[in-house]
Amino acid sequence: MRSLKLLASPKSAGKAIKFKGEEIPVETLGEDSFRGVDTALFSAGGNTSKAYAKHAVRAGAVVIDNSSAFRMEADVPLVVPEINPADIQTHRGIIANPNCTTIVALMALYPLHQTFWVKRVIASSYQAVSGAGAKAIRELSLQSESFFSGAPSSVEVFPHPIAFNVLPQVDVFLESGYTKEEVKFVNESRKIMHHPRLRASITCVRVPVFRAHSVAIHAEFQQPVSVDRARDVLAKFPGLELVDDPSSMTYPMPILASGKNNCQVGRVRVDSALDNGLAFWVCGDQLLKGAALNAVQIAELLAR
Amino acid sequence: MRSLKLLASPKSAGKAIKFKGEEIPVETLGEDSFRGVDTALFSAGGNTSKAYAKHAVRAGAVVIDNSSAFRMEADVPLVVPEINPADIQTHRGIIANPNCTTIVALMALYPLHQTFWVKRVIASSYQAVSGAGAKAIRELSLQSESFFSGAPSSVEVFPHPIAFNVLPQVDVFLESGYTKEEVKFVNESRKIMHHPRLRASITCVRVPVFRAHSVAIHAEFQQPVSVDRARDVLAKFPGLELVDDPSSMTYPMPILASGKNNCQVGRVRVDSALDNGLAFWVCGDQLLKGAALNAVQIAELLAR
Repeated sequence: MRSLKLLASPKSAGKAIKFKGEEIPVETLGEDSFRGVDTALFSAGGNTSKAYAKHAVRAGAVVIDNSSAFRMEADVPLVVPEINPADIQTHRGIIANPNCTTIVALMALYPLHQTFWVKRVIASSYQAVSGAGAKAIRELSLQSESFFSGAPSSVEVFPHPIAFNVLPQVDVFLESGYTKEEVKFVNESRKIMHHPRLRASITCVRVPVFRAHSVAIHAEFQQPVSVDRARDVLAKFPGLELVDDPSSMTYPMPILASGKNNCQVGRVRVDSALDNGLAFWVCGDQLLKGAALNAVQIAELLAR
Repeated sequence: MRSLKLLASPKSAGKAIKFKGEEIPVETLGEDSFRGVDTALFSAGGNTSKAYAKHAVRAGAVVIDNSSAFRMEADVPLVVPEINPADIQTHRGIIANPNCTTIVALMALYPLHQTFWVKRVIASSYQAVSGAGAKAIRELSLQSESFFSGAPSSVEVFPHPIAFNVLPQVDVFLESGYTKEEVKFVNESRKIMHHPRLRASITCVRVPVFRAHSVAIHAEFQQPVSVDRARDVLAKFPGLELVDDPSSMTYPMPILASGKNNCQVGRVRVDSALDNGLAFWVCGDQLLKGAALNAVQIAELLAR
């Protein structure tokens, strides 16, 4: 990379951010901001992406978009570099970065799919507040502190208190009774794995954890499964670490996965409800592999 | 009830507990403690139950045991009064109180089973620390406080820190890779619902919540399902409250269910991975319906 340009709303313009020892000023995003830009990383929400991605593409940049705005469009590849790197070649200016819970779940599901061919997946998430932004992290912090100090705290980012509580809602509700987050998991999993017939359902739940997401997955496969073979392919998959020793109470946890590039998988066992089934538990840093790291990995693929 | 006798280890003997305005002394538990006792509520762990239940039975008492010691014994009924009240008639001195997560999950699953006949259930739990006792509640409190104050806190009750973390382990691990808690859910569900062929699997997870358990359930039924009909039978089931209005972001949560006798169910939707499937979310106070209340309801049934 020859140079870095930082673009934001007028609110942030004028600030400076340190990168490799250099203070880089934040500029106001505009339609003409993208002249000379090769790769544009968008992470300011769907509306900003919808309004400005086209200008970046017109200026000749490739957009890597972290929002959900373009993920399901047919001519936009949706990429997890360890899973479907070849898909980036089909881009027409925009490459989408998948949903955080989907990335973390697929980092463990995909190697098993390659080995046993997944037919059906049923999952439940334990999602950190970081997925809802910096204000959400502060909200969990303030609510937790005020629980002990008695100081008043407010409910602003989440629809209900998150401290010492869990919320079975991430993103907004759809007519079907599912949340958008839950539908993203189903649709994005199918697209990333090139598996349009995958049957999937998930309950997405926000938990009072700061940074890493966890997902409990129960999956049914076409082929007979074995825990040993599953552990073997999980241990070998790039970007994934097998953390699975029940005898020493060793398994992935948010506090272990936070700050790590690798996702972690453990609790691998034969599923007692599904034929050819495996149950497992995966954790990943929502801000790294679940967002920024995956976007940067896509940029690295592009630069090759 | 004519009188109440309180029995405990020598450590607690001599203390007094207030009941209906009267101070009742705590006596030391012994083999001869049960003379004149009609109903003995045991809640001091499996070892105490195994050592003393027989003495209570010999003295003519009916034991309602909150531990897992006798739950799966063929001549011990395992009872949730709203589900299988008739089973108490088969007792031979001991009636077992089911596992807390199992009770909470079945309070919503059973009415749906009565209507649609459940074949397969896949669940994930979000279990409060209260299930691990008073020390566990203190541990979550101390760890959370010290997170902000910087004061040292220790990890004693749980194998890892629970504050701002989730632990995919409740109870000890078995050879199969499942925990005892997870196997209890499968076996106890079959026994309580008289459904030995039920296929079930669960991932049991401890979350930093003080008191109420939550369970995300995805279930496959024999009969075609409808969300309207499901909501209808759930709303009518005794001991269960339907809390399900996505348009106003209304659903069960631990902070809503804590302190309530009724369990709460919501997020009812057609499951997108299972044929004739429903997904739903249930919360219940682990100390009430998940433990003490259910035991007292069994005692009330007995007294009729």
